[in-house]
Amino acid sequence: MSTLRGNAVVAQSGGPTAVINSSACGVIEEALRQRDAITGLLGANNGILGIVQEDLFDLGAESPDAITLLHATPSSAIGSCRYKLGDPDKDHEKYDRLLAVFAAHNIRYFFYIGGNDSMDTADKVNRLAAKRGYELRVVGIAKTIDNDLKGTDHCPGYGSVAKFLATCVMEAGRDTEAMYTFDPVSITEAMGRNTGWIAAATGLAKRHLDEAPNLIYVPEIAFDEKRFISDVMEVHRRLGRCFVVVSEGIKNAAGVYISDLARPDRPAVEKDMFGHQQLGGVAAYLAGIVKRETGLKARYNKLDTCQRNAVHFASKTDSDEAYECGQAAVRQALAGVTGKMVNLNRVSQQPYRSTPGLIDLAEVANGVRALPRDFMDSAGAGISEAMRAYAGPLIQGEVAIRIGHDGLPVFTRFQRRPIARQLPPFVGQQS
Amino acid sequence: MSTLRGNAVVAQSGGPTAVINSSACGVIEEALRQRDAITGLLGANNGILGIVQEDLFDLGAESPDAITLLHATPSSAIGSCRYKLGDPDKDHEKYDRLLAVFAAHNIRYFFYIGGNDSMDTADKVNRLAAKRGYELRVVGIAKTIDNDLKGTDHCPGYGSVAKFLATCVMEAGRDTEAMYTFDPVSITEAMGRNTGWIAAATGLAKRHLDEAPNLIYVPEIAFDEKRFISDVMEVHRRLGRCFVVVSEGIKNAAGVYISDLARPDRPAVEKDMFGHQQLGGVAAYLAGIVKRETGLKARYNKLDTCQRNAVHFASKTDSDEAYECGQAAVRQALAGVTGKMVNLNRVSQQPYRSTPGLIDLAEVANGVRALPRDFMDSAGAGISEAMRAYAGPLIQGEVAIRIGHDGLPVFTRFQRRPIARQLPPFVGQQS
Repeated sequence: MSTLRGNAVVAQSGGPTAVINSSACGVIEEALRQRDAITGLLGANNGILGIVQEDLFDLGAESPDAITLLHATPSSAIGSCRYKLGDPDKDHEKYDRLLAVFAAHNIRYFFYIGGNDSMDTADKVNRLAAKRGYELRVVGIAKTIDNDLKGTDHCPGYGSVAKFLATCVMEAGRDTEAMYTFDPVSITEAMGRNTGWIAAATGLAKRHLDEAPNLIYVPEIAFDEKRFISDVMEVHRRLGRCFVVVSEGIKNAAGVYISDLARPDRPAVEKDMFGHQQLGGVAAYLAGIVKRETGLKARYNKLDTCQRNAVHFASKTDSDEAYECGQAAVRQALAGVTGKMVNLNRVSQQPYRSTPGLIDLAEVANGVRALPRDFMDSAGAGISEAMRAYAGPLIQGEVAIRIGHDGLPVFTRFQRRPIARQLPPFVGQQS
Repeated sequence: MSTLRGNAVVAQSGGPTAVINSSACGVIEEALRQRDAITGLLGANNGILGIVQEDLFDLGAESPDAITLLHATPSSAIGSCRYKLGDPDKDHEKYDRLLAVFAAHNIRYFFYIGGNDSMDTADKVNRLAAKRGYELRVVGIAKTIDNDLKGTDHCPGYGSVAKFLATCVMEAGRDTEAMYTFDPVSITEAMGRNTGWIAAATGLAKRHLDEAPNLIYVPEIAFDEKRFISDVMEVHRRLGRCFVVVSEGIKNAAGVYISDLARPDRPAVEKDMFGHQQLGGVAAYLAGIVKRETGLKARYNKLDTCQRNAVHFASKTDSDEAYECGQAAVRQALAGVTGKMVNLNRVSQQPYRSTPGLIDLAEVANGVRALPRDFMDSAGAGISEAMRAYAGPLIQGEVAIRIGHDGLPVFTRFQRRPIARQLPPFVGQQS
């Protein structure tokens, strides 16, 4: 394989995580070491949108310290988006534009850090470039707190949200233990869209019977309101308190999101460009049901975007793996790989060890991997030993963060030296 | 002053904090060093309720490690409550019972770690004991994340919630920066009941103009919905995004809680025993208003009990001060003090230094200290330099926590060896 010389572009996409910047760091540091092939390294403001809009900046101009500090910087330092590219045959304007931008800047490497929607985009770009005879290597890097990507043991981002949210549940669980005579029921809402990976991870907080969380509800098991109330009452009868974790995406047996029941005024119309519904509010809704049906006081925690950006207590294992995935993406692309996503394979359980591997983008694109039924216990409101064995190793170690003189974390802020535009503004549809 | 010999009881009350156990640790370690005066050290399960119910355990039987680990254990390890003692003339049954329990266990020292309601209780107990000629020394130790106690520079618990919530706002603020094309508005709800101390502390996260939080709303400044919408639109016009922090207790010009407007079905009837309304849900309500009035997508974070128990990123300054207050309480009681609360005096600003002092319980009881108007900027939706100077030193350093083999924090769990009951069960009204 002869060396393909040209520029590389890095983009981040979708909901941020605590370690998506570690993946970016892996790409950037490795790419900057490969200057014989990768002649320039560009960042795309706001993911694929930045490429469409030719809104690029020079990552090579950033200081080494700013790049290293990505390890301790949450969210997507390059910028992110949720931007739908349609079918290449129908949405050809945008694809033409992407290829035009790649060509205008001699971009030969495209590294895309994202979830299943992003891998779909990367796959389409890769196919189109091949069809048009434009030599381009496209490598995706798995990212999502949701942990719902197919073809990987787990996703960078998951271990950190698991560690942080499990810790918050331990801490808030102690609150409920101390305050049960006044605040007997507490409900924590976990992200995770249609899968229960994150909610289930909070089960790691429960080292002993009767510690929080007492009950966990995931979307993979149909939610029954009557059963929920009887579960809560049973725990309360036994302990005088009940700490619940609920996934934002739980549905009833008819497949209706409970969060939609929470807002009868707002039927399932608020969807994003990918057709995903915007969820939220289920914990508040369930707290209301508990009060109404049992007379018990109930409160709720909703950590929303705080949970996915909590680098201040992120998993070092997760962060290190995220970095390795980024680094592997560059090495594989230089070796000639295209149309693949870097995944993670668990090569040993005890001691735990993972290595980055490759999987076809098309295999990942748009698929969703559910929490296996046997990762929950037989009753379905707690986790099993299989889940503990799976998730336990992913939350080991803490990311070292930098603290400023003011006692708060210090994060990277890129200079973002713009790359001069070569093309006229994009006049096609922006979304 | 001759040495008063007898047992001591420690109780924790009201909403937990990340460092209330550091105060307990200060009391316990100091009391155990003073065995010539303090012959036995008892913990009261669930605050004053544990004394009323004669539900006591032997703190002297706990291991030194379990006591040391209190520094890294959130919530109230001894147990807490919200339990109202009325006027001694009207509610004499409970006061009689308290004194009966003290006498039955030869309790001569009562250390009560709590907020203004608790100091009111401690004050009443102290007066009654004096009136009845029962020699008892009652010393309170300031505790509240709300920072709204009178007669102290600040309250143990505040620095930690300030550090954690400001960090979460920094992290989630980066999410909004990265995702503004999709999720332009984010609203974080801060605790604080009727004062803006906690919401204002998140202003420390904003090191540079245009960083989160862009807007902060506190209860001390009347909330105007139209003004709020125009503030959000102005920031969004300028930056393409807006990150808001709102105190749970904001009120409109008529003095009505915005959280009550959020639930027209649930008028202001849910009050606790002290007559405080249970607040919450204001961020969700404001997110709805933003969507309706501006068409912008808005999401919200509500960290509820997670914020007040986040020992995993607590302030070392706060934790150390909490410990010193507990220690000082014991020393002062042994020196003959009663009817006082240990407060904190800022003796130097640069370098910052505080020392524990004393104030009459009656001065603290039931009073509330509002956030000074000049701690906010002139527009009233951001903090001033005075606030930065005040709160900055309180969030310095991080509490060292213990991490288990499973990657999660390890907290103290007391054995709770029960003290044998000497009295018949309390048959008076329980609440």
